[in-house]
Amino acid sequence: MTEPIALPPGFRAAGLHAGIKKNGKPDLGVLIADHAYPAYAMFTQNHLLGAHIPVCREHLSRSGGQVRAVLVNSGNANCATGSAGIGDNRAVCRAVADHLGCPIQQVLFLSTGVIGARLPVAVIVDAVPGLCDRAHEAGAREFAEAIMTTDTHPKLASEVIHATDGAAVQVTGIAKGAGMIHPDMATLLAFLVTEGRSEADLAMGLRAIADQTFHRVTIDGDTSPNDTLLLWTAARHWCRPTADEHGLPVHPLEDSLTRAGRSLARMIARDGEGATRLVTVQVRGCMSDQDTLDLGRFVATSPLVKTAVFGRDPNWGRILSAAGACGLPIDIERARVWIGDAELFSEGKPHPQNEAAARQHLLDQEDVVLGIDAGMGPFCGEVWTCDFSDRYVSINADYRS
Amino acid sequence: MTEPIALPPGFRAAGLHAGIKKNGKPDLGVLIADHAYPAYAMFTQNHLLGAHIPVCREHLSRSGGQVRAVLVNSGNANCATGSAGIGDNRAVCRAVADHLGCPIQQVLFLSTGVIGARLPVAVIVDAVPGLCDRAHEAGAREFAEAIMTTDTHPKLASEVIHATDGAAVQVTGIAKGAGMIHPDMATLLAFLVTEGRSEADLAMGLRAIADQTFHRVTIDGDTSPNDTLLLWTAARHWCRPTADEHGLPVHPLEDSLTRAGRSLARMIARDGEGATRLVTVQVRGCMSDQDTLDLGRFVATSPLVKTAVFGRDPNWGRILSAAGACGLPIDIERARVWIGDAELFSEGKPHPQNEAAARQHLLDQEDVVLGIDAGMGPFCGEVWTCDFSDRYVSINADYRS
Repeated sequence: MTEPIALPPGFRAAGLHAGIKKNGKPDLGVLIADHAYPAYAMFTQNHLLGAHIPVCREHLSRSGGQVRAVLVNSGNANCATGSAGIGDNRAVCRAVADHLGCPIQQVLFLSTGVIGARLPVAVIVDAVPGLCDRAHEAGAREFAEAIMTTDTHPKLASEVIHATDGAAVQVTGIAKGAGMIHPDMATLLAFLVTEGRSEADLAMGLRAIADQTFHRVTIDGDTSPNDTLLLWTAARHWCRPTADEHGLPVHPLEDSLTRAGRSLARMIARDGEGATRLVTVQVRGCMSDQDTLDLGRFVATSPLVKTAVFGRDPNWGRILSAAGACGLPIDIERARVWIGDAELFSEGKPHPQNEAAARQHLLDQEDVVLGIDAGMGPFCGEVWTCDFSDRYVSINADYRS
Repeated sequence: MTEPIALPPGFRAAGLHAGIKKNGKPDLGVLIADHAYPAYAMFTQNHLLGAHIPVCREHLSRSGGQVRAVLVNSGNANCATGSAGIGDNRAVCRAVADHLGCPIQQVLFLSTGVIGARLPVAVIVDAVPGLCDRAHEAGAREFAEAIMTTDTHPKLASEVIHATDGAAVQVTGIAKGAGMIHPDMATLLAFLVTEGRSEADLAMGLRAIADQTFHRVTIDGDTSPNDTLLLWTAARHWCRPTADEHGLPVHPLEDSLTRAGRSLARMIARDGEGATRLVTVQVRGCMSDQDTLDLGRFVATSPLVKTAVFGRDPNWGRILSAAGACGLPIDIERARVWIGDAELFSEGKPHPQNEAAARQHLLDQEDVVLGIDAGMGPFCGEVWTCDFSDRYVSINADYRS
């Protein structure tokens, strides 16, 4: 995974160690476009908001959603820092705008890291000119590395689709978040960058993409105070709807963005703090799409389910009990529980003869499947998480120390 | 804590190893009354129900709430075992009723332990006569030991209050649940046994007592498939309401039962799997009593908050972020966060100068206090939990292995 990930033409990126993190790792990254291009953003639902969120909202509003540069620091969330923190964010935006010679409202500056500490503004401002000047077309990985907190590796996804006129359209996704499973240093930052243009409203489209991707990585995915998802497009190639072999509509740009988002979302689950397994919770038999999400999240956040996966224990009883406790109706007589291909509970009773196969699945596969059918309706969905190891505890007990 | 805990006159108890647990520890206990006495029960809200719950409900209904004996096994939850599990429960009740010479509907038989395995009925039935015959007035501790699963010690509480006629009234509480923090082997079983009689409806009273006690030990307290709370009273001494020095009404029996329940609830939190600290989450500034419970539970179940306590890290940002994410309104400008006596966030900004005192509190105290004021209203409340250690993970990863 070390081949360069391309950015769409017209975008450049870079990352470096400015001095925010004590361990010398990269902590400041920038994405720059040659011109201001349209961007669409989604922010956390947490009542506590990182300082960057009100400033980003204001800038997007004042610029009509046109963005020239996105700066990101890791190591400090600039959150719960009051009006001083908002001022800090503006000061850094000003430095970027001055250096690039663009209006300040075309600059977004995002932060992720520890809550409650003031940003080292001078350190960041000093690093801005050098960082912007070295931004280059192959800089996506550098940028992805600079925004990491407890991530163990950078997260990038990329593909090329064909526009309606046949032109190649680059779709690139970059994300961070190893503890997105939980808030705090767990901020999810995700960037989808492309040159495609859609007939549909991409602000609405972004919400639908998030619902199928980042919102399906366990329960705290949308609740960290700093969570931000940005879709940014040079919008130079029309990607109009087509039809598949059954005549059903296909939205090539949205579908590609969803694939990139799903890929990043699964990378985040796989890189969960202390994780040894990527866990896909398959949910069936629900009465709505929202129910699949609620039930899947409940199972996927159960510490008992997650520790059982770490122990390679095909403990279907914990899955069924979590499903029973999630507040949604479940028909125990019609409910089914499976691990991998092994059915462990159905028709109201367990199938202990299949436990050995389920255990083998947990032992052998790095990507494991836990399944629950609520027996109530026709809706299906997936949620992704990771197992829960003793390393998770040590990572989080020692994080600030 | 090895002095005998008294039972009210007319009640006897015993416990022994019948052969359900492989490790030779006590796994079968009984509480017997000289006569059938009134009992009030509350059961889990989980849609998955342990087999004992429908049978208990049926027996209480058929007997008019009169109970002669309560048998409990640990090591096997008799849950997700279908109609066969219900039949197993009835067979054991029958054996107890035959031995004591009482109607089967006056017998309750509760189970706690692993989900999804059939009960060894013959082993239990064989042990019933000997167990019932050895029941004695000082047997409360034996019984408490026999119902333990991952608990590290038995949980008993006891006090004597004075009835309206001046008679001494014994109130005794016995509970189990070390992982009540989570479902599965985590079942909460709690028994409040007394001889007091109230003018109020004790079925309603039990609900109010649970709301102030067992429902405040983190979120999964009411969701294990087997959770059961039983209030059982010989009802021989009237405990009528009195007034305190301000003229406000005092309900001596309900207050005593609440004290016993609170004491047991805190013991359960303190004995949480792998716990090194009892954590009291103090919640203030809410707009309703229910909001204090919802907010407190959200903070008390945050793995990030709990791992920070284990790491003795006064990470107030995680407390504030959890409060912001819980779905209730919070006024960040008026919100406050404290640990012990140290105020760490108020008036919209952190107070880093107090972090050393907060850290010392976490280091020195076995019972630690985390506080959050939502800044919205006048309601206050408490929730109890424990910290989250690497031992929690190993206990639950290896539980069935």
